[in-house]
Amino acid sequence: MKPCIVWQTDFGLKWGAVAAMRGVCKQVDPTLECIDITHEIEQYNIPAASREIMYVEPFWPKGTIFVSVVDPGVGTERRACVAKLKDGNYIITPDNGTLTHLFYQVGIEEIREIDESVNRYPGTEEVSVFHGRDIFAYTAARLAAGVITFEQVGPSYPVEEAVIFEQDLIQAKVKGTIIEGVVSSVSDPFGSIALNILSKDFKAAGYAHGEKVMVTLKRNGQAYFSKEVLYQKSFGFVAVGEEILFDSSTNYIELGINQGNFKETYQVGAGSEYTFTFQKI
Amino acid sequence: MKPCIVWQTDFGLKWGAVAAMRGVCKQVDPTLECIDITHEIEQYNIPAASREIMYVEPFWPKGTIFVSVVDPGVGTERRACVAKLKDGNYIITPDNGTLTHLFYQVGIEEIREIDESVNRYPGTEEVSVFHGRDIFAYTAARLAAGVITFEQVGPSYPVEEAVIFEQDLIQAKVKGTIIEGVVSSVSDPFGSIALNILSKDFKAAGYAHGEKVMVTLKRNGQAYFSKEVLYQKSFGFVAVGEEILFDSSTNYIELGINQGNFKETYQVGAGSEYTFTFQKI
Amino acid sequence: MKPCIVWQTDFGLKWGAVAAMRGVCKQVDPTLECIDITHEIEQYNIPAASREIMYVEPFWPKGTIFVSVVDPGVGTERRACVAKLKDGNYIITPDNGTLTHLFYQVGIEEIREIDESVNRYPGTEEVSVFHGRDIFAYTAARLAAGVITFEQVGPSYPVEEAVIFEQDLIQAKVKGTIIEGVVSSVSDPFGSIALNILSKDFKAAGYAHGEKVMVTLKRNGQAYFSKEVLYQKSFGFVAVGEEILFDSSTNYIELGINQGNFKETYQVGAGSEYTFTFQKI
Repeated sequence: MKPCIVWQTDFGLKWGAVAAMRGVCKQVDPTLECIDITHEIEQYNIPAASREIMYVEPFWPKGTIFVSVVDPGVGTERRACVAKLKDGNYIITPDNGTLTHLFYQVGIEEIREIDESVNRYPGTEEVSVFHGRDIFAYTAARLAAGVITFEQVGPSYPVEEAVIFEQDLIQAKVKGTIIEGVVSSVSDPFGSIALNILSKDFKAAGYAHGEKVMVTLKRNGQAYFSKEVLYQKSFGFVAVGEEILFDSSTNYIELGINQGNFKETYQVGAGSEYTFTFQKI
Repeated sequence: MKPCIVWQTDFGLKWGAVAAMRGVCKQVDPTLECIDITHEIEQYNIPAASREIMYVEPFWPKGTIFVSVVDPGVGTERRACVAKLKDGNYIITPDNGTLTHLFYQVGIEEIREIDESVNRYPGTEEVSVFHGRDIFAYTAARLAAGVITFEQVGPSYPVEEAVIFEQDLIQAKVKGTIIEGVVSSVSDPFGSIALNILSKDFKAAGYAHGEKVMVTLKRNGQAYFSKEVLYQKSFGFVAVGEEILFDSSTNYIELGINQGNFKETYQVGAGSEYTFTFQKI
Repeated sequence: MKPCIVWQTDFGLKWGAVAAMRGVCKQVDPTLECIDITHEIEQYNIPAASREIMYVEPFWPKGTIFVSVVDPGVGTERRACVAKLKDGNYIITPDNGTLTHLFYQVGIEEIREIDESVNRYPGTEEVSVFHGRDIFAYTAARLAAGVITFEQVGPSYPVEEAVIFEQDLIQAKVKGTIIEGVVSSVSDPFGSIALNILSKDFKAAGYAHGEKVMVTLKRNGQAYFSKEVLYQKSFGFVAVGEEILFDSSTNYIELGINQGNFKETYQVGAGSEYTFTFQKI
């Protein structure tokens, strides 16, 4: 059984870009299967691409070939690469920071720059704006089909040279029962916001399901939310419209509103200006 | 040939939730094929989930495994179930009303509660907000792959205990040639509205293609549309911009505007406050 | 290996229309694979359908069966057809102009009208508004599965009778180094606009990567953009927010803004009222 090719891009699905990439794969080997994560990563948002693929990667069989194309530098000097992860999966992507979360969460065993002189879809030498089709899809398909080995992707380079962002991976500070951190993601379509504290660390600090927690949210130091919120295992434990703190499917703590939209209600964004504090009551 | 797993959720496709479910299926058996109905059911709208799957179910080979996850009560006491339909298909869903339309249209032969102690994706015991991935996908894949039988899903319970809504299934009243009913759905993206009268019942009441019909629409008893409208087999039989009554692909009567949007033009919603009357001219 | 069925429609993915078509294919042959171009062609926009499929078609293995359903005349007298292209691919579509770009770019070898008396999904004879499911999907699946041959689709008719639009295919006029043309498409989700001059014709007129070009855009003869713009092989060669002329992935010249949206910034549409002029500096 050949591995699946699992995709994410910022191309959208309103035109034929994704189908052109699929066609290239089918030309290499018609038995290959392509599956989508999403094609609606925010345009040019490399940190979002890095984070999104991390949530999906652990749930796929080992040996899967992931392709991520959020590529504002396409056709310029940035490297096109294939990274072999420490768990046996591969990720094919522009080396522009997309590898960040997988680097920290899984680890990169080896990384190779795609040699365009052999791993480019023939006839596209004049095109420099669609590496998703001409280089990434073509290389992914050849690797998945066994036409080339990982070594034949191109020359290896030191993992230390890979572009890795650092700011996204700070964990919340735990001082006794006081926890201070930041909003790490607001991408949940149900409008919950993800905080940078793991459920296990939250519990280790002394919090338990069924208790109320004093939650304060600040933007640039100014508080805009301050309330006692129930901590439970799911949002359905409070009335519709009520705030709730719960264990997310990615093992972090999330703050939401049962059947409402916390992000929109309180106009929350992600990043270092959006901080939170938890206190025991 | 193993059955397909056919999906609908309210998760959207802007993040990795759907791809995580797919990965779980591929871990169970890499030969399984997953196909989407939609992931854009209105969030938390259980009646919409019930209705949407009914339109698709009859067109799939018998033995297909459908999964529907519109699940505002995830992680609370609502049951997670697998229903075996009388036509040989299966549906895996929270037992929260999603089974309603299939119960009436197809019939449920047997229903079983998923035993989470055996049919949960290992390692997710601490997560209560993503049964789509951890329980429904995992169970669907194991059933489709033949790893478990329907009996091994978990204990059977009486079909009478399944949550079935009643208000959605009223048929229009036919008194001679006068027909009174309600708008049952406005989900068509072309903006036509579906009425709760079958084409065959409409014809049996004496209406025929090519005739004009007096159509009155009321909201809470107040008329907002009253016009003679042509009844034909397709919307293309009137000029662009003109109203038309036609036989929908689900065998009900629909009211639309040729290449226009009836729902938006007349601000129509679905449900008991939106009534219609047909009269012979 | 059976050919893939590759789809585009204007149905959207918020309801079950696409999944019903898939189910019909799986009933014909459960081993068939269906892949999407897009289901978000602008509703009723036949020229857009014609253009979009042209961008994808060259990248698929020969023998692929494309299905395009943008069909405002469904159920009326327009023909439902299967065209065999000169490169060995097939396209199944209402014969309403959708064939235009493929006719000019690839050529049609033979065209047949679908005989609904044999190639209609049984039991749907009363439905006239969903040929996508009842005729196009059913015929595509039977052709892909080898249940019917191309000859068994229905009677052949002269290619000259196919509905072909002419206005969409005008190429820009090149007079020495002055080039005058129109905006041919604004469908790129990154907001670049496609101009009707091939990169090779642009280069042949004396322009080269790294040079600045005097670009003037007019709407109905009124200039709204007039600026010196760099020509390069990708948008990443200018600063973020700066205009750029580059070679698109479809081998035409595009005008964009690096990580910005040219179409929205300058409110550009496609068609003959949106003209451009290039001049040497």
